Amino acid sequence: MSGLTIALAQVNPCVGDIAGNAALVRASVRRAAEAGANLVAFPEMVITGYPIEDLALRESFQRAAEGAVQTLATALEADGLGSITVILGTLGVSQKGMPFNQAAVIRRGSVEARYNKHHLPNYGVFDERRIFASGQDRCVLRVHDATVGVVICEDIWQDGGPVSQMDDANIQLLVVLNGSPFEEGKGHVRRDLAARRAREVKAPVAYVNLWGGQDDLVFDGHSFIVGADGRVLASSPGFADHLLLWTLPHDDDVPKPGSLAPAASDDEQVYTAIVTGLRDYVTKNGFSSVVLGVSGGIDSALTAVIAADALGGENVVGVSMPSAFSSDHSKDDAADLAKRIGADYRVQPIAPMVDAFQDQLGLTGVSEENLQARVRGVILMAISNREGHLVIAPGNKSELATGYATIYDAGSIGGFAPLKDVDKSRVWELARWRNRAAAQRGEVEPIPVNSIEKPPSAELRPGQTDQDSLPAYELLDEVLDAYVEHAEGRAELLARGFDEAVVDKVLSLVDRAEWKRRQYPPGPKVTALAFGRDRRLPITSRWRELEE
Amino acid sequence: MSGLTIALAQVNPCVGDIAGNAALVRASVRRAAEAGANLVAFPEMVITGYPIEDLALRESFQRAAEGAVQTLATALEADGLGSITVILGTLGVSQKGMPFNQAAVIRRGSVEARYNKHHLPNYGVFDERRIFASGQDRCVLRVHDATVGVVICEDIWQDGGPVSQMDDANIQLLVVLNGSPFEEGKGHVRRDLAARRAREVKAPVAYVNLWGGQDDLVFDGHSFIVGADGRVLASSPGFADHLLLWTLPHDDDVPKPGSLAPAASDDEQVYTAIVTGLRDYVTKNGFSSVVLGVSGGIDSALTAVIAADALGGENVVGVSMPSAFSSDHSKDDAADLAKRIGADYRVQPIAPMVDAFQDQLGLTGVSEENLQARVRGVILMAISNREGHLVIAPGNKSELATGYATIYDAGSIGGFAPLKDVDKSRVWELARWRNRAAAQRGEVEPIPVNSIEKPPSAELRPGQTDQDSLPAYELLDEVLDAYVEHAEGRAELLARGFDEAVVDKVLSLVDRAEWKRRQYPPGPKVTALAFGRDRRLPITSRWRELEE
Repeated sequence: MSGLTIALAQVNPCVGDIAGNAALVRASVRRAAEAGANLVAFPEMVITGYPIEDLALRESFQRAAEGAVQTLATALEADGLGSITVILGTLGVSQKGMPFNQAAVIRRGSVEARYNKHHLPNYGVFDERRIFASGQDRCVLRVHDATVGVVICEDIWQDGGPVSQMDDANIQLLVVLNGSPFEEGKGHVRRDLAARRAREVKAPVAYVNLWGGQDDLVFDGHSFIVGADGRVLASSPGFADHLLLWTLPHDDDVPKPGSLAPAASDDEQVYTAIVTGLRDYVTKNGFSSVVLGVSGGIDSALTAVIAADALGGENVVGVSMPSAFSSDHSKDDAADLAKRIGADYRVQPIAPMVDAFQDQLGLTGVSEENLQARVRGVILMAISNREGHLVIAPGNKSELATGYATIYDAGSIGGFAPLKDVDKSRVWELARWRNRAAAQRGEVEPIPVNSIEKPPSAELRPGQTDQDSLPAYELLDEVLDAYVEHAEGRAELLARGFDEAVVDKVLSLVDRAEWKRRQYPPGPKVTALAFGRDRRLPITSRWRELEE
Repeated sequence: MSGLTIALAQVNPCVGDIAGNAALVRASVRRAAEAGANLVAFPEMVITGYPIEDLALRESFQRAAEGAVQTLATALEADGLGSITVILGTLGVSQKGMPFNQAAVIRRGSVEARYNKHHLPNYGVFDERRIFASGQDRCVLRVHDATVGVVICEDIWQDGGPVSQMDDANIQLLVVLNGSPFEEGKGHVRRDLAARRAREVKAPVAYVNLWGGQDDLVFDGHSFIVGADGRVLASSPGFADHLLLWTLPHDDDVPKPGSLAPAASDDEQVYTAIVTGLRDYVTKNGFSSVVLGVSGGIDSALTAVIAADALGGENVVGVSMPSAFSSDHSKDDAADLAKRIGADYRVQPIAPMVDAFQDQLGLTGVSEENLQARVRGVILMAISNREGHLVIAPGNKSELATGYATIYDAGSIGGFAPLKDVDKSRVWELARWRNRAAAQRGEVEPIPVNSIEKPPSAELRPGQTDQDSLPAYELLDEVLDAYVEHAEGRAELLARGFDEAVVDKVLSLVDRAEWKRRQYPPGPKVTALAFGRDRRLPITSRWRELEE
């Protein structure tokens, strides 16, 4: 017997906003009840937001999370929703005061059961063994007339543990609460994994994930249900609020598919992840507008368009800061861009400021180039201070990898760096994708074609192009992908046929730029390995791959 | 029977300099042999440097470390030192490719034994469960005619594990290899802990520690030997190369004390830790000189003196950058300081640059103040670019905690921030201590008394003082100590009698400044809790202690 209707509530909580997150849960339970659900599942740590890092260790925060869960249980009962089974993620605490990454089961006005995550990820962007103790017990519930198992995120990524403890429980549904951050291609991996666990427990798996941006992570949602045979039976769209409803069939009935979200291309997913990451960083931190330098180049053009998509063009201030070496086409392209997206466009020539520094300092060569770049940084920070826009940095991952940027310039200062994890080759791809998407909708293409097609240049001296200093981006990005994302050594790179001089140059640039990366603003992770907490290397290091 | 002479080689390796570190070990073994040692112990991970973070996961790095240990074993035998037992820390790898934090025992030209650290610290500044697998086995050796146990650092900080496995081994000596970073007061904790373990195993404990700076950590050395009764029998000085020799007595003989290093005051230790951290950051990264802004205030004065102590006054460039609001005494005090320490002193008035910006931007209020501060940052970076000095940031921990500083100004840009973990109250204490120490040696007091005694001011508007915006530093630093270092909540702070308005103001400032802290240069940890990887909190967080 069954006929249990479940709802997966894919929501966007905010870290630390415990009262707001509890209110979001309460409203979602009401909506799910109205849609006929008997069980509503919420993502990992929805009460606190995720990840909370060392907030987990603060007693005042622990008390607030537990208090909110108790208050919520009472409120749901008062709302007449006490008969619904609510499974949600929160911060638990053991009797000895150890924090747990916990699932709480709320029913009839109280917390009926608790489950503590067993497998604590402590790799990549995760530090869960720093802040949580591991659970030991399994969680199996009766809901309606079905037997339901509950686990949390990493518990299904590791063999053994709570899923294998389900063996003798004859569960009819496994509910998995997740806070799984986006990276390109991860959707398939998650679905394959859930399908494997579904076959193991011989029951459908309901996978509910957070969505929204949190500093350098973007959660993509993409919640889904797979049947015991591993087939996807229902799915939510990415990067949006969604309530996914599905009914568990009666014994021996064939499960009926629910609604299936249309699939988005990789380009669309990456682009939307960045828009989401930027929007949530800006709004969750209390800003409503951004300012950036627009040079006419592709990085600032794409960044401005992302900002317009995130916040509305009217909330984007684009500042053109031409120098003596800026070409006319650069200024025209910047103005054209601003017009296309409806940005607030301003021009601040930098020559008078640069001249004032030069009268005293008399710089030449690279020092002079860097001076121009930094004067632009000061202008943007001044506009930000005066008007309250958040400064965003248009630097890309190839620049950040090689240190090919002036620290504290207009490309690397500010609160958030949308393209931090997007290499230059991908910047062009995303720009072309965004223009095509506009054309398909019959809209103006937001990015001037000149910005996409001209050779990249910082325009800090006459005739300069990026390729004076760097290998062609197509080649550079291939080497970076192998060295940074796949952590291949010099020997492996040479064995793959890359030119020795190119490899040695790129590796040396990457290794020496760690200090600049440490001072970079956060930006959304969209690849398997982003700079920042995903890749932790010493600044002071004499290790060079060249030596082996 | 025994009479085993042991040497603890307290050395300063560099992360990643595998060949250089192996050469350092080889030379130290020779010196120890010449001094009559039968056993030489080196610190944790001396071959690779410590901590190596994600370098541990690189196969090329793993191969290089193992190759260096093998080469070293052969070289020691060739040097005629094969009969000495050498115990050193390195990066090991399991047959399945898992990295270990390992002790290797070298004798007669080969690696005779290996021990893998059991307890992997994953709190505070440590991430060892991210990069290492845990060892399971104990390590007990016969050396000369004694039975010797070997463990690594955290193994003695946790109950159970390898020390309790020594119970039935009747060891006569426990050797502990350490990479234990400095913090104020930690020396006593280490010695008490080692004494407890010595009583447990009924044998002396030989504790050998790294010294030197590595990014935001400073290792202080302070190696020592405690007897089975917990008494300190021999000790090395802090922050210096040292070979500590001691002879294990024959059975039932009373152990003879070896040399004991004189104790240094807490002020001296903290000061020396900062000097060491700065010197090693500068030199290990290939620089030989630094540049900083000198305002006449206490922070830049103390920072300049620390730099002069680390690198020599002739390698310090102090740039006075007076504004329209700078007082005459500020300029005089800055010049006086530079003269006292023999620094290269320059004056760059900022009015012409500020005027050039203001002609275009017309800023007022805080925006205008910030502009002045950032123009100074640009000047320092320009001098650094032109002349190759590393920029150092004189900002202190109270500023960093409250965000009371302009991001990208002369106080917060650059490669290293010596006072990052020193609150303002301690800045004054260290300045007074440094002057007293000079006076006691009959030297010129390096810090002008005016810089110590005048009320602190950023001098960005007429008559400004820090206390216009902040509580008195004495009170502020007490609240910060409770909230940041001891992670007390608002309720605890109020219960301790702090004024509610002050508490709410300080907590709010601290919580909102996280984004600035993320972009700050590294600086040496000297307290129990430094900003940076020691305290990991989200930038985006709506949690406010006020709400509970």
